[in-house]
Amino acid sequence: MTDTAAKRPRAVVLLSGGLDSYTAAATAKAEGRQLFALTINYGQRHKRELEAARAVAGALGVARHIELEIDLSRFGGSSLTSASAVPKDRALDPAEIPSTYVPARNTVFLALALSWAEVVEAREIIIGVNAIDYSGYPDCRPEYIRAFEKLASLATRAGVEGHAMTIKTPLLTLSKAEIITLGTSLGLDYAITHSCYDPRPDGSPCRHCDSCRLREDGFRAAGIADPLLLRCASSPLD
Amino acid sequence: MTDTAAKRPRAVVLLSGGLDSYTAAATAKAEGRQLFALTINYGQRHKRELEAARAVAGALGVARHIELEIDLSRFGGSSLTSASAVPKDRALDPAEIPSTYVPARNTVFLALALSWAEVVEAREIIIGVNAIDYSGYPDCRPEYIRAFEKLASLATRAGVEGHAMTIKTPLLTLSKAEIITLGTSLGLDYAITHSCYDPRPDGSPCRHCDSCRLREDGFRAAGIADPLLLRCASSPLD
Repeated sequence: MTDTAAKRPRAVVLLSGGLDSYTAAATAKAEGRQLFALTINYGQRHKRELEAARAVAGALGVARHIELEIDLSRFGGSSLTSASAVPKDRALDPAEIPSTYVPARNTVFLALALSWAEVVEAREIIIGVNAIDYSGYPDCRPEYIRAFEKLASLATRAGVEGHAMTIKTPLLTLSKAEIITLGTSLGLDYAITHSCYDPRPDGSPCRHCDSCRLREDGFRAAGIADPLLLRCASSPLD
Repeated sequence: MTDTAAKRPRAVVLLSGGLDSYTAAATAKAEGRQLFALTINYGQRHKRELEAARAVAGALGVARHIELEIDLSRFGGSSLTSASAVPKDRALDPAEIPSTYVPARNTVFLALALSWAEVVEAREIIIGVNAIDYSGYPDCRPEYIRAFEKLASLATRAGVEGHAMTIKTPLLTLSKAEIITLGTSLGLDYAITHSCYDPRPDGSPCRHCDSCRLREDGFRAAGIADPLLLRCASSPLD
C-alpha cells in the first residue's frame, strides 16, 4: 500500500458482481475512498456472480477483496438458495415480495461488512441498494438503511469511542437507467458484471428473471447497449 | 413434531454452549416456546464450546439445531479468532473493551438468527447477553438490543406484513450469580456447558480468562459449586 493510499479514508463495499454494487463502489472510489471489497458466497444458485465480483474488484483496484462463505441455504426460504424455480417474466409489483427474497440477507451482509469495517478502521460501508427499480425486498428501503446505520454505531467499539459509522447508499433513489448512465460516465465496463439469478449453463443471462429484466429495461431506458448482451450475442434467445 | 409442538410459539435461540445462552433458552422453553437453536462456528479458538452447544441443544430438546460456519478470523481483530494471547487475570473494567471482543459479533449472530426466524416463522429471537457481569462488549448493551429489534422488524417480510420481531434478553439485567441461581432452579446441568476462552488441551477451563473468572465469581456469589469444576477436579490448578 502506498503512503497516499494509507491516507485515504477507508470504506468497506459489498460487492456482489452485479452492476449496482460496481457502480456504488466506483462512486466511492471517485470520492477518494480506499476500498475494502466484501463478497459473500451464501449458497446462491448464481455462483457465476462470484467470478464477476472478482473481475469487478480487479477493475476497481481495491486494497483488499475478501470472499466469505456462509451457507444461507441451511435456512432455506428463498428460491435463490434452493432448488425451487426462480420466477420468470412475472409482473413486477413493488408491493409483492418475490420468492427470490433471501430472508434478512442485507442484514447479514451489512453485519459482516460492519465487522470488517471495524477491524480496518473504515467509517463507511457502501451498499448498492436501490428502492426504485428493485424487486420489492424490505431490506432495500431507506428506513431500513437508516435503522442499520443507527445500530452500527451502537454495535461497535468505534461507536463507543465516538466514531459514527455511515452506511452509504449512492444508488438508493436512482432509477436503473440513471445508475447505468452514471456508471457509464465513470467509464465502467459493465461487460464484466453479472446480474442474472438463474444463468444458463454457459453462464450467460436467462433474460427472463426479475434481475435480467430490470437490467434490460434500464439499459433500454438509458439508451445504452448492454455490453454483456453484446458479449453473449452468440447465445440464442429463447 | 407433535401437534402440540406445532402449536407452540417458535423462537430462535443463539446457543453458544456457555451457561448464559443455556439459561436464556431454558427460560423461553419454560414459557412454552418451541426452540430453534443456532450455533455459530465462527473460527473461535475455543471450539470446545461447539460440543457443549450440541449437548445443551440435546438437554433442551430443541426442535432443530443448526451449526453454521462463518470464518470471522478472515477479518481478524480479536484475540478469540487469532493467535494473539487471550488476556488472563486482568482487572475487569466495564469501561474497557478487551481484545476478546469480536467486532460486530452479536450483530452477525442476530442477523443470522433473524434470517432463520423469518423462514420458520418465529417471532422471537433469544440471546443470552448480559450487561452486568460482562466483559464490556458494546453489543451487549440494552440500547444496542433495542436498536436491533427495531431493525429486525424493518428488515423482514414478517415486519412488512405487520409481525414485529422481538429480541428477548432474559438475562440482560441479572448478575452472574442470579443467572446461575435461576438456571439451577430450572434444573439445568451446568456441567455440560463450556465458558472458557482458552481451554487447556483436554478441554478443561483455564480459570484465568475473563469468562472463567466471571463464571467462578458467579458460582461463588450464588453459593453453588460449579459442576463443571467438580467434573474437572482431577485436572491440576495452575
